[in-house]
Amino acid sequence: MPLPTFDRIVVFGVGLIGGSFALALKQAGEVKQVIGFGRRVETLQRAQALGIIDTMGDASSVAGADLVLIAAPVAQTEMLLREMQPHLQAGTVVTDAGSTKSDVIQAARAALGEKIAQFVPGHPIAGREQNGPEAVLADLYHGKKVVLTALPENSSDSIARVAGAWERCGAFIHYLSAEEHDAVFAAVSHLPHLLAYALVGDIASRQNADRLFQYAASGFRDFTRIAGSSPEMWRDISLANRQALLAELDAYTAQLASLRTMLRSADGAALEQVYARAQSARQSWIAAIEAAEQARAHEQGGD
Amino acid sequence: MPLPTFDRIVVFGVGLIGGSFALALKQAGEVKQVIGFGRRVETLQRAQALGIIDTMGDASSVAGADLVLIAAPVAQTEMLLREMQPHLQAGTVVTDAGSTKSDVIQAARAALGEKIAQFVPGHPIAGREQNGPEAVLADLYHGKKVVLTALPENSSDSIARVAGAWERCGAFIHYLSAEEHDAVFAAVSHLPHLLAYALVGDIASRQNADRLFQYAASGFRDFTRIAGSSPEMWRDISLANRQALLAELDAYTAQLASLRTMLRSADGAALEQVYARAQSARQSWIAAIEAAEQARAHEQGGD
Repeated sequence: MPLPTFDRIVVFGVGLIGGSFALALKQAGEVKQVIGFGRRVETLQRAQALGIIDTMGDASSVAGADLVLIAAPVAQTEMLLREMQPHLQAGTVVTDAGSTKSDVIQAARAALGEKIAQFVPGHPIAGREQNGPEAVLADLYHGKKVVLTALPENSSDSIARVAGAWERCGAFIHYLSAEEHDAVFAAVSHLPHLLAYALVGDIASRQNADRLFQYAASGFRDFTRIAGSSPEMWRDISLANRQALLAELDAYTAQLASLRTMLRSADGAALEQVYARAQSARQSWIAAIEAAEQARAHEQGGD
Repeated sequence: MPLPTFDRIVVFGVGLIGGSFALALKQAGEVKQVIGFGRRVETLQRAQALGIIDTMGDASSVAGADLVLIAAPVAQTEMLLREMQPHLQAGTVVTDAGSTKSDVIQAARAALGEKIAQFVPGHPIAGREQNGPEAVLADLYHGKKVVLTALPENSSDSIARVAGAWERCGAFIHYLSAEEHDAVFAAVSHLPHLLAYALVGDIASRQNADRLFQYAASGFRDFTRIAGSSPEMWRDISLANRQALLAELDAYTAQLASLRTMLRSADGAALEQVYARAQSARQSWIAAIEAAEQARAHEQGGD
């Protein structure tokens, strides 16, 4: 059996995202020791009992670590990095799992100063509705994308260390600039969350909300699934990426205004054209996902 | 074994909705003969080969039927009823499965004239992504709601005949006025469809659409699932219920404008409040659904 790649990994936040990263590396034998820390000691104890982390620590535990992952709401990044900064040694690389990147980089520059080269920003594109240590899955990242938005200051070794850790969790690494990342995810993730919250919030505020929910069916259930996500996390993401999100919201509102005009004038042909283009684009997208999944299954079968 | 409830049922449209109704009644031994008709003979042949219908017919086959179900895009209702009208005998009750009711009733009054008392409007709240005879499920309606928007002209016997057929498919009957029905479904079904089409259409129209779709993940997939629905069917529904849909679209656009103001002023507390109320309302709704499902499973277990 080969030696573990990492001697010590420190994870802040041992819920779904951070805990699944830790557990994947532990189960693959890629790390000797995982130290977890976080806001609630009770959560850390549960993660330890579940074998997700080996020991509990604090910000000073980053001293001597090979790799540190911050898996916390993005608004906490600066404070956490400030706490870690005095303990960060030259051989340690820090990364994060935040859903926004420009603000995280700004926070990291403010908190880390000269040590900024040691911070490689990242965003794993994976999740599920459940949260906390009990939701952790060793294969959560298997076949999923991780976007790294590396800084000009990062050494290629530091980037390779972060990329290698995620690859050992089964993920594929993609590289984008922070601006590209934030614009893309404003469109395909942050805006849909806001739209789902808006719909459920609008209906919940009605006098006849109970009757409306009574007749909501599976289409509504799927459409609003993401409105079950953490309000605190999505408040932070919305604020952190608000310029890109405002631009997406405006583009979407313009699209709704255009559909409203078609509806008002009972222009069935125009409506059907918009609906048909959307249906066809979605079918192509789903077909591409399924083809990629099959190709992956085929590759694995041939190993 | 008791005698079948129905001697002859005629179904227009033998795909998912009409076919599942027919198959449920056949498998339960509640009908002697099911005649199917529709726009494409090839679809009827497949339905016959699959045992969903016994024979193929046409509009004149409604003569002597106990019950006729129209399962077609709502815009076709008037034309279909006009074709059937001369063949409708006094003992026959007609119902439909359209997602909108005010327009269907208007069409039925125009087409049936004095025979309007024989038409009991209905809407089964069930579906799945697949369509056509191959998608038919005998238990599609099991535990689902069917809304009847009975007319003042309907006799209680006619209403009972339609309700009884759906109950034998395992459904629960709810009664609403057509206006209530259309307002409720504009909010919880028709608007979400329009919103999902608008999002996918907006993204598909971008120059960097491929990159955007590349990073869309499971949240986007669920949010946009209903944008995979038939453009023709949803064009018809949007137009048929456009007054109520416009009102919902305006309420939703106002909600988005309010969220935009919070975002622009970086009012995290206000955003979080909206998100939290939506999350909590959704959680309560899901909990209520699950409790109802459990209660039902318990009842069945006790039978």
